[in-house]
Amino acid sequence: MKHFFTSLWEVIFLFSFVFAFGIDSFTHEWYILFIMNTYICVPFYKTSLTDGFWKDRQKLNADVSIPNVYKRFKETDRIDCLYPKWKRPLSRSDRFYDSDTAKWLEAAAYVLHTNRADYPELEKLCDEVIALFKKRQQVNGYLNSYFQRRPFLPKFYFRPDHELYCAGHIMEAAVAYYQATGKDALLNVAEKYADHIRKRFMIKKNTAFSTPGHEEIELALYRMYDATGKEKYKDMAEFFLNMRGTVKEKTYRMFNDAYDQHEVPVRELTSAEGHAVRAMYLYCGMADMARVSGDKEVLSACKRLFEDACKKMYVTGGIGSDHNGECFTIPYDLPNNVAYSESCAAISFMMFCKRMLLLEKDGRYADVIERIMYNNLLSSTSLDGKAFFYENPLEICKTDLTRSRTIRKKPRLPQWQRQEVFGCSCCPPNINRTVASIGDYIFTENENEIVLHQFIACENDALCVKTDYPVGDKIVVRGKNYGKDLFSVRIPAWCKKATLSLNGNLVDAEPKNGYVTLKVDSGFILELTLDMTPFFVKTHPLCKENRNKVALQRGPVVYCLEEKDNGDLAPLAAVCSGPFTEVKSDLSPLPFIDVVGKELTADATYYQNECSAKEKTLRFTPYFTFANRGESDMKVWIPLA
Amino acid sequence: MKHFFTSLWEVIFLFSFVFAFGIDSFTHEWYILFIMNTYICVPFYKTSLTDGFWKDRQKLNADVSIPNVYKRFKETDRIDCLYPKWKRPLSRSDRFYDSDTAKWLEAAAYVLHTNRADYPELEKLCDEVIALFKKRQQVNGYLNSYFQRRPFLPKFYFRPDHELYCAGHIMEAAVAYYQATGKDALLNVAEKYADHIRKRFMIKKNTAFSTPGHEEIELALYRMYDATGKEKYKDMAEFFLNMRGTVKEKTYRMFNDAYDQHEVPVRELTSAEGHAVRAMYLYCGMADMARVSGDKEVLSACKRLFEDACKKMYVTGGIGSDHNGECFTIPYDLPNNVAYSESCAAISFMMFCKRMLLLEKDGRYADVIERIMYNNLLSSTSLDGKAFFYENPLEICKTDLTRSRTIRKKPRLPQWQRQEVFGCSCCPPNINRTVASIGDYIFTENENEIVLHQFIACENDALCVKTDYPVGDKIVVRGKNYGKDLFSVRIPAWCKKATLSLNGNLVDAEPKNGYVTLKVDSGFILELTLDMTPFFVKTHPLCKENRNKVALQRGPVVYCLEEKDNGDLAPLAAVCSGPFTEVKSDLSPLPFIDVVGKELTADATYYQNECSAKEKTLRFTPYFTFANRGESDMKVWIPLA
Repeated sequence: MKHFFTSLWEVIFLFSFVFAFGIDSFTHEWYILFIMNTYICVPFYKTSLTDGFWKDRQKLNADVSIPNVYKRFKETDRIDCLYPKWKRPLSRSDRFYDSDTAKWLEAAAYVLHTNRADYPELEKLCDEVIALFKKRQQVNGYLNSYFQRRPFLPKFYFRPDHELYCAGHIMEAAVAYYQATGKDALLNVAEKYADHIRKRFMIKKNTAFSTPGHEEIELALYRMYDATGKEKYKDMAEFFLNMRGTVKEKTYRMFNDAYDQHEVPVRELTSAEGHAVRAMYLYCGMADMARVSGDKEVLSACKRLFEDACKKMYVTGGIGSDHNGECFTIPYDLPNNVAYSESCAAISFMMFCKRMLLLEKDGRYADVIERIMYNNLLSSTSLDGKAFFYENPLEICKTDLTRSRTIRKKPRLPQWQRQEVFGCSCCPPNINRTVASIGDYIFTENENEIVLHQFIACENDALCVKTDYPVGDKIVVRGKNYGKDLFSVRIPAWCKKATLSLNGNLVDAEPKNGYVTLKVDSGFILELTLDMTPFFVKTHPLCKENRNKVALQRGPVVYCLEEKDNGDLAPLAAVCSGPFTEVKSDLSPLPFIDVVGKELTADATYYQNECSAKEKTLRFTPYFTFANRGESDMKVWIPLA
Repeated sequence: MKHFFTSLWEVIFLFSFVFAFGIDSFTHEWYILFIMNTYICVPFYKTSLTDGFWKDRQKLNADVSIPNVYKRFKETDRIDCLYPKWKRPLSRSDRFYDSDTAKWLEAAAYVLHTNRADYPELEKLCDEVIALFKKRQQVNGYLNSYFQRRPFLPKFYFRPDHELYCAGHIMEAAVAYYQATGKDALLNVAEKYADHIRKRFMIKKNTAFSTPGHEEIELALYRMYDATGKEKYKDMAEFFLNMRGTVKEKTYRMFNDAYDQHEVPVRELTSAEGHAVRAMYLYCGMADMARVSGDKEVLSACKRLFEDACKKMYVTGGIGSDHNGECFTIPYDLPNNVAYSESCAAISFMMFCKRMLLLEKDGRYADVIERIMYNNLLSSTSLDGKAFFYENPLEICKTDLTRSRTIRKKPRLPQWQRQEVFGCSCCPPNINRTVASIGDYIFTENENEIVLHQFIACENDALCVKTDYPVGDKIVVRGKNYGKDLFSVRIPAWCKKATLSLNGNLVDAEPKNGYVTLKVDSGFILELTLDMTPFFVKTHPLCKENRNKVALQRGPVVYCLEEKDNGDLAPLAAVCSGPFTEVKSDLSPLPFIDVVGKELTADATYYQNECSAKEKTLRFTPYFTFANRGESDMKVWIPLA
C-alpha cells in the first residue's frame, strides 16, 4: 500500500510540474531531489577541524602514520614494484599492491587538501609515485603492476585477482589528488584506464568475467562521475552494478556465490553476506546509484542491507566476524576472542552509512558511524600512530592459545599486537585516508538546512562548532551568517539525557529519527549537553557469546578491561550499577573508569548454591587504548556476577 | 609432617609385627593391606542384578547392543580379517580391529558369566572368534591381524600403531572369558602372547620402543596377574609403568610428549594431560600398581591426577574436551557444542575411579562413577540399544553448522545422531562391556565391612538391595546372614537431604568422606531416602563457557532441553527457582521436568535496559534420552534470565 501511494504522489507531482512549467523545465536531477529528499555532503575540505580530539588524531595521522606507512610500503617494494624492470620476488599479496599504494596516495591527498603548505615533502613523494603509475600505464590504458610483471597472464581473465579493485583505488586517489592540488596527471591516467576498461567490458565484451571479484570500482566510478560530470563513468558504474548477479561468474573454490555478492541481482539483496569489505563497497556503489539515478528499488535494498548489517555488528562497530573468508555470518553471531572484525570492513561500513545519510536523515546511520569512529577505527591504530590492527578482537585470553597443551599446532586467533605492515596491507592506508578525511562525516546539507551528525570541533563558512567531545559533554554550535532556515542536530541513540538550548533558551523537543530540527537565525547559538555518565550495555539475547554479559560505554566510547590494570581477568564479574569513578589516564584524553565488581571463586567444578565472591574494583580503559602497553589479556564483554 | 608420621607408624608396626610373630609370618600382602587400608571389589558375577533400572539396561545390552555390534563388526570385516588369507581392503583404523573384537568378546563373556544358559548362541559366536584368534597366533606367540597381514612391516617398531594396546584387550577378554566359562583357549593365546612380549621387550630388548603408544596393556597385565597369580605379569606391568617417561620415545608429529604420557615418569605426573583414554588407562595401571605393590608415590600421583581430571570433566562425566588429539586441555575448559567427551574416555575414568575405591573409601570416586553412569555412559547408547555416540556433545545448535553461509567447508562438530559402527569403533564394545559388568561398581569390601557405592537393585550372599533409583528416592538394604561388623553407605554429594534409618530407627550421622558407616547385625535393614527434588547446578566461575548458566539435575541424572519439546532454544533462559513438575515420559522411566523459564527478545542489537521477556515453560528431558527423536537442537547449560 505504502509503495502504491508513493508512486501515486509521484505521478501527480510529475504531471503538475510539467503542466506548470512546461516539459523542458523538468530535469532528471530535479525529479530525484524531489522524490528522494536527498542531501549533499559538506566535504571535509570545506570545514577545518579546530583544536580538539580529532584535530590531534589527524595531526598524528599526517605526521606519523602516513609517513610510516609510506616507509613500510617502500621497504616492502609496494612502491618500487611499479618500475617496469622490478624483479625482486614479491609476496603472495602483490596482486593488490597497486591498491595499497593508491589508498596511501588518497590519504596523502587529503592531508594536502587541508594543509598543503605544511607538507611539501609529502607532495613531492606523491608526485614521484604518480609519475611511476603514469610511466607504468600501457599505451592502451591498462595499468596493473602485478599483471604487467607477468605478461604471460591474460588481462581481465582471473576474476578474483583484484584488477578492477586496484583500478577503482587508482580512480579514487586520482580524484582526491586532483581536487587537493589541481594536478591532473593521475586523473588522466585514471580516465585513460577507465576508458580502456569500458572498451574491454562494455564495448568489446572480450573479458572472462563481467563483474569484479572484489567490488570498489563501482563507487570509484561514481566519484569520477561526481568529479568530472562525465556520464560515461556513471554508465560504467551502472553497468557493473546491474550485471551483478545476472551472469554466471567464477569465485574461489572454498566459497559460494554469496562470498563476492554475485548470487542475486543487487536489487534483490536482502541480507549482508560474504566478504564484509566487498559487500560494503558494493553497498556504497548501490547507495551512490540510488542517489544519482533515484533508483528506489536499490534504495530499498540498501536499507534492508543496513538493517541486517546492524545485527552482525560488534559493539565496537566491527563487522565480518569470521576469519574464514573475512565474512559476515548470521545475525548476532559475534564471537569475541576470534572476532575478525577487519579494520577495512568497519571503514567500509562508515562509507556506506555516509552515503545513506545523503538519502535519508536517519540518525541510525550516524550512530553507526560514531560507534565505528570512536571504537573500531580509533583502536585500529596504536597510540603512537605507527602500527595498525588488521583484525580487531574484543577479547584477548592468552590461555586460548595454550588450552590444548599437547597439540603442537596453535589455534587460529587474531594478532594481539598492532603491526606496521601486513602481507595483505589494505588496512593501514585505509585507516590513513579515513582519519585524514574524517571531516566528511560532520555535516550534510540541502537547500534549507544543515545537519550536524558528528560532534567534532570545526569551523566553516556557515558554522563554528566548539567541543571537546567525547571527553567533555558540551557541544556549542554558532551560526556565522547562517543563510538557511533550519538547523538539525543529532541526539545519539546511546544518550538518554540530552539538554538543548537555542540562543540561551531551553529547547524541549523530542528528536525525530535521531535529530532535533530547529528554526534558526543567522547568528544562532545552540548548546547541546549530552549526559556522559558511564553506562552498561547488553547484547541482543540471540547473541550466544554475550548472554549475561555487559560492556561499559562512556558516551560513544566502548571500554574494556585489561590484565595490566586488573590482574587475571578470568574470575572477574561486573555488577550492573555504579558509582563510576573517572580517573585521569596517561593513555588518552579519555579517563579510566573505576567501578566496583566482583572476583569469583569456587571450590568445586560443579556446585548448587552461590560461588564465593569478593568485591573488587574493576578498572576500565577505552577500547581504543588496548594493547598499547605490551601483551595483556583484554575483555570488552564482562560476565555479570 | 604428615608423611613423616605415617612413615614412623609404619616402622613401629613393622618392628612390632616382626617382634611378635617372627620374620616369616610377615608377608608383602599383609604389609600392603595394613599401610594402604585397601578394599577388594565384590565382582559383578557375585552379585545378580534384580528388577530395576540397570537390569533393563543390561538386558537391552545383551539382547540388542552386543548382537548388533557383532553384526556390524562382521559386516565391516573386523572379525573376518583374522583369517590369514583375508585380502579385502580394510579401513585406516584396521590397526586396532583386534582390540574392537576383543572388547566385544569381553562384553559377551560378562553376559555369559551371569546368564550363560540364556545365551548359547552368543557362546558359540565367541568360541568361533576365539578359534580365529588362536589360529592367527604365530608359533612364537605374536598375534596382530594388522601387522600379520603386512609381513613386510617389522613388529614392535611403530610405537603409535597400537600393537600392545590390542594385546592388552586380548588379555582382558581372555581373563573374562576364562572366568565366565572356564574355557582357557583364549587365555592360553594371551599367555603365549604375553610371554612373547616379555621376551621382546624385557629380555631381548630388541624393540624400537619401550612403552606402548596407547596404554592398556599395563592394566591388562595386572588383570592377568590377579587371575593367574603369576608374578611375571606383575613384573611386566611394572616394567611398562616404570619405563614410561624415562626413555626417549616417538609420538605423532602433531603432538608433544604429553600426548601419550611419556613426558615424565609416572610418579611425577601432576596433571591429566594428552589423549584422555590413553591417560586414564595409564592411571588405571598406576592404581593397580599402588594396590599390588603398595607404592605410595604412585598412589599420590593417582590422587593428584584424579583431582585435576575432575576440573576437566563435563557435568555429564565426559572428559577430553578437545577433538584435536581427543585430549585433555586446561582446567574448566569445557566447550559445549564442540565437546569431544569420548564415550571411551568417560568409561576409562569410571575404571580409574573403581580402582581408586579399592585404595581409599572416598565418596568422590563413587560420585564421579555415578555422574558418568547416568549421563555420559547411558547417553552414549540409543534408547533402542542399536546405535552409539563416540563423541558426546552438551549442545546441539544447527546454526553452528551454517553460521558462515558463504563458506563451503563445514566446521568440525560432533555427530548429532548415534551410529551403529564407526571407522574407529572402540566405543561401542567398550560401552557393551561396561554395561554388562556394571555390577562391579556396586560394592567393595574388606574383612570388617561392605561398602555400598552405587544404588542398583541387586542381591548376593550377604546383602539384598531393593530400589528403583534413580527413578525413585528410596534404597532398602537387607543383611542376609551378614557376617561383618560394619556396613557403609555412600551419601551422594549432589544430595542435600538424605534420611537414613537402621532397623527402623532414624540414624543421625554426618557422612565422613561421603559415607555413613554403621555397626550392624546380621539381618539388619537399612533404609536410605535421597531427596529427588530437581535442582540447578552451576560450573566453576573459571569455566568461560558456562558463566551465568545452569544445568538441571534430578538426583544423579543431568537434564537437557531439546528443540523437539521447546521449539527454538536460542532465546530461552532459565530462572533459578521451581516449582518443578514431573511429567511421565515415553522415552525412559525418568520423568520430563517442566519448570517456568523465560523467552527473551530485544528490538536492538545493543541496549541499555532490560530486554523483553515473557514466561515460558521449559520442558527438560534426561540428557541420556537426547537425540532419540530425530535431529533436534539440544542444550544442557541454559543461560540464566
